[in-house]
Amino acid sequence: MWASFAAQVLCCSSSVSVTWSRGVRLGVTMAKSKFEYVRSFEVDDSCLPHCWVVVRLDGRNFHRFAEKHHFTKPNDKRALHLMTKCAQTVMEELEDIVIAYGQSDEYSFVFRRKSNWFKRRASKFMTLVASQFASSYVFYWRDYFEDQPLLYPPGFDGRVVVYPSNQTLKDYLSWRQADCHINNLYNTVFWALVQQSGLTPAQAQERLKGTLAADKNEILFTEFHINYNNEPQMYKKGTVLIWQKVDEVVIKEMKLPTEEEAQETTVTRTRNRPMPLYCDIMGDAFWKEHPEILEEES
Amino acid sequence: MWASFAAQVLCCSSSVSVTWSRGVRLGVTMAKSKFEYVRSFEVDDSCLPHCWVVVRLDGRNFHRFAEKHHFTKPNDKRALHLMTKCAQTVMEELEDIVIAYGQSDEYSFVFRRKSNWFKRRASKFMTLVASQFASSYVFYWRDYFEDQPLLYPPGFDGRVVVYPSNQTLKDYLSWRQADCHINNLYNTVFWALVQQSGLTPAQAQERLKGTLAADKNEILFTEFHINYNNEPQMYKKGTVLIWQKVDEVVIKEMKLPTEEEAQETTVTRTRNRPMPLYCDIMGDAFWKEHPEILEEES
Amino acid sequence: MWASFAAQVLCCSSSVSVTWSRGVRLGVTMAKSKFEYVRSFEVDDSCLPHCWVVVRLDGRNFHRFAEKHHFTKPNDKRALHLMTKCAQTVMEELEDIVIAYGQSDEYSFVFRRKSNWFKRRASKFMTLVASQFASSYVFYWRDYFEDQPLLYPPGFDGRVVVYPSNQTLKDYLSWRQADCHINNLYNTVFWALVQQSGLTPAQAQERLKGTLAADKNEILFTEFHINYNNEPQMYKKGTVLIWQKVDEVVIKEMKLPTEEEAQETTVTRTRNRPMPLYCDIMGDAFWKEHPEILEEES
Amino acid sequence: MWASFAAQVLCCSSSVSVTWSRGVRLGVTMAKSKFEYVRSFEVDDSCLPHCWVVVRLDGRNFHRFAEKHHFTKPNDKRALHLMTKCAQTVMEELEDIVIAYGQSDEYSFVFRRKSNWFKRRASKFMTLVASQFASSYVFYWRDYFEDQPLLYPPGFDGRVVVYPSNQTLKDYLSWRQADCHINNLYNTVFWALVQQSGLTPAQAQERLKGTLAADKNEILFTEFHINYNNEPQMYKKGTVLIWQKVDEVVIKEMKLPTEEEAQETTVTRTRNRPMPLYCDIMGDAFWKEHPEILEEES
Repeated sequence: MWASFAAQVLCCSSSVSVTWSRGVRLGVTMAKSKFEYVRSFEVDDSCLPHCWVVVRLDGRNFHRFAEKHHFTKPNDKRALHLMTKCAQTVMEELEDIVIAYGQSDEYSFVFRRKSNWFKRRASKFMTLVASQFASSYVFYWRDYFEDQPLLYPPGFDGRVVVYPSNQTLKDYLSWRQADCHINNLYNTVFWALVQQSGLTPAQAQERLKGTLAADKNEILFTEFHINYNNEPQMYKKGTVLIWQKVDEVVIKEMKLPTEEEAQETTVTRTRNRPMPLYCDIMGDAFWKEHPEILEEES
Repeated sequence: MWASFAAQVLCCSSSVSVTWSRGVRLGVTMAKSKFEYVRSFEVDDSCLPHCWVVVRLDGRNFHRFAEKHHFTKPNDKRALHLMTKCAQTVMEELEDIVIAYGQSDEYSFVFRRKSNWFKRRASKFMTLVASQFASSYVFYWRDYFEDQPLLYPPGFDGRVVVYPSNQTLKDYLSWRQADCHINNLYNTVFWALVQQSGLTPAQAQERLKGTLAADKNEILFTEFHINYNNEPQMYKKGTVLIWQKVDEVVIKEMKLPTEEEAQETTVTRTRNRPMPLYCDIMGDAFWKEHPEILEEES
Repeated sequence: MWASFAAQVLCCSSSVSVTWSRGVRLGVTMAKSKFEYVRSFEVDDSCLPHCWVVVRLDGRNFHRFAEKHHFTKPNDKRALHLMTKCAQTVMEELEDIVIAYGQSDEYSFVFRRKSNWFKRRASKFMTLVASQFASSYVFYWRDYFEDQPLLYPPGFDGRVVVYPSNQTLKDYLSWRQADCHINNLYNTVFWALVQQSGLTPAQAQERLKGTLAADKNEILFTEFHINYNNEPQMYKKGTVLIWQKVDEVVIKEMKLPTEEEAQETTVTRTRNRPMPLYCDIMGDAFWKEHPEILEEES
Repeated sequence: MWASFAAQVLCCSSSVSVTWSRGVRLGVTMAKSKFEYVRSFEVDDSCLPHCWVVVRLDGRNFHRFAEKHHFTKPNDKRALHLMTKCAQTVMEELEDIVIAYGQSDEYSFVFRRKSNWFKRRASKFMTLVASQFASSYVFYWRDYFEDQPLLYPPGFDGRVVVYPSNQTLKDYLSWRQADCHINNLYNTVFWALVQQSGLTPAQAQERLKGTLAADKNEILFTEFHINYNNEPQMYKKGTVLIWQKVDEVVIKEMKLPTEEEAQETTVTRTRNRPMPLYCDIMGDAFWKEHPEILEEES
């Protein structure tokens, strides 16, 4: 309700009335209180306390979206950076997100164990993440796709999953990163076959059927002189967002009493920002380096 | 996953491996299958069959948003039309929505009783509505606010409520419309007092304390010569969106064999579109006029 | 809590204390208030309002139970009557059950649409039905199995299902009655083949493989001179329990002032009791005859 | 279904038919398959994996039950032992319960973290516990109340609560034990005042209003020469049931080849049984002594 200071209005308009059951006519305010029973149909969907709450978003029909907007294959750097910009906005605008992980057209957000944001209601978590991400996607589009106008507003579906322990949460994130690796290796070979060897998608698919990871590495190396290990980390590992202290330079305009002209000064402030990393999160090293992510002050 | 034809990749990369429990090192594909147990933590949140599913969205912090973007008070026509444009996009892009109702910064969407879209999963319903609405809000902003740039991407929270009968659904919509009426009457007087009589918001609030609807009508009429009944229907009733057949004129370019120049022809096509009405939905008349909304073909 | 008038006890015992985190020692009462956060892990499981709530019970391992207690095949009249006695007890002791239906080792209980018993919490509904049924089963066992001692206490599993309309509720009950019919026809032929023709269970099963209902009727008639239509209704239809007014004769002992001996008088009182019917509930006739079952006073 | 080898019966009886919508008459088997859609209204209520699942039972109206059956106050030893016998039966008959805790008319059962019994469905857990407990209560009544016939079958309500960590589970059990202590201290003084000092319940209640634990200990000691510390542990601490190895002596009848008469021999077997302890579970000592309760073999 954006234009209202209204609170409880205690009675009814003479000019508007509603016919209630058995022909009784009521003023609107009384009618409203009669209708209000419908609120009891709402369900309490709060997440189990003391558990990690994960919201995962997926682009809706992004295969088509990528084609319409001429995304480069197998990876479009602009699209990936835009996704990360949206995820950073989500982390800045919403509360209690301690880590996020993204790859391809999906992003996962982890709320801290003891978050009590919106009383842990799952519907609030997932719709606020989904809507903030989606509006940011359109808002920041131009910063990443200068020459490519956005043709239509995209949708994202979301879900909430609850993890009771650090181990299950880490395994969830590892699952997504393993998925990223497997898809990226496949896509890298697939599009090399299509773009450089001139195979049709069907032929490329056929060629890769049954191949192991070692086989794909081999094809990349012998046929395309690509060492997969040298591919960009962001493609191979996806993007991890965690809060880090960064020094930000702020320009300040000052007017000194004795001078006529305003002076600009720069001030450096340390702020907490969600910063991207492109590193392994399946092993223990990452978690040992960043113990604060899983630690919860009591 | 937007860039992939990948399906099942059957084995693991030699170059990447994960240390599983007790120091066992695994290839990524095997690791992924070990991690996949985390999917079992997802919960089935499908809505009770044969019930109306309602998704209601609310703007997040729209009080602040309205101020920052200089919305006119008590109603901003541009903002209301933009909300409706977004709701229409949601109805066109998503499936099985039979009616929508909006007022102020909220919109409710009703999915048909027997919808089996995404297996009736509540999380899909609410996140797809929320994200499609939010991305449309930014996408169409300029069409409604030409001179007012959008300063930041807004968020919307959503929820799902399930209604088992036609009566409870109609009561839900009536509840929202009664809410619209009560707030709008209040806001109309409130802002007249502030804008025309020069009261402060606090004074206006004080003045209206304890007044009945009749009192407010009286104040409007005697002090401001406003007959509330003549206020725009969209403000008093909110916006109802239902599917209606409309004739659309399509311009077609044709090249006739004997002519050198292309000719433009117009073709009229009948299409189903979500069209706005600003009418009473609390009484029976609306539902008798539009029986198809609640009827379900078996 | 059966032995207590205790309410709020405001402080702690000097003789008992608990070591809380970081070595802080607390009295028990303060400790209890610290532990009480664990209540927040309870989930609201109230059933959707305005819907029929069905609790269905099934005997646990009743195949084994029937063998150990020498139930007659294909139907044991004593066992079925005992089940019904337990269901009647459930209806009398619990609240808001309008109809129950039983067959074999299962019973379904339907709570009225607008019941607000225990705030419609599903867990209360199903555990109170299950426990009352189970304790009654042991309590009344002797009344039905005079010569057969109960060897061990049986278990019953239960579930709650919610139906939003009269039609879905009637279809639920019809589903159970159709199940009764199909099983009973099968079992009647099966046990005739085993008991009268001397087939082994495996042979009887083989013989019936792929047979239609008409075939089974034919076997019963030609081989065993059984007209299935003449089988007892309770076996073919199961048992329906609905509330009916019955006249009950109550013996009253009275002492008149002028007489030394007490006199017995009988008084007839009309009471509402859950009474068994063995009739079809799949067709409309039953529901037309008993409209009060589905009607809900507003 | 206790009397059936029936599986899929593929067609319909000629003698029974059902009128489906629009007057179509169907055989029962076909009708059943039409009705079967009602199963889709059942909800998946499986408990979050890797969490402790607690079922807590409470006697229904046990205040009245205790009075009708002349339970001694403040504690009835027979009633408490019967409760424990029922809890032991539940642990023996059901699966995956690692610890139980009881006091007064309540009992809590903890299923192991990784239990997959009945796919972790909450409704199965709570109804099987409730029904097994209730039938056992009647079944074993005579063993504990020789001279007091059971007047009617009691009910128990149950609930399921899920705890994600060892700490929250231990805090749950501590909460119940703190509750036991507080109630028992109160009841001990209360009934001393009533039974020994001749106060009415209302007077006793008034006397205890606002007293601290130390005050109650003082009253007990000075007025009734009772040292609360010497009260039975079972009353003060409640009953903890854990699995313990016990040697059981089994009498075996043997026939030796050279002898005509059978000989009885006793054999000692070690078995796992749920054994009662009356100890503190709020501190760490208990959990250090019994690490196997919370440990989960992977």
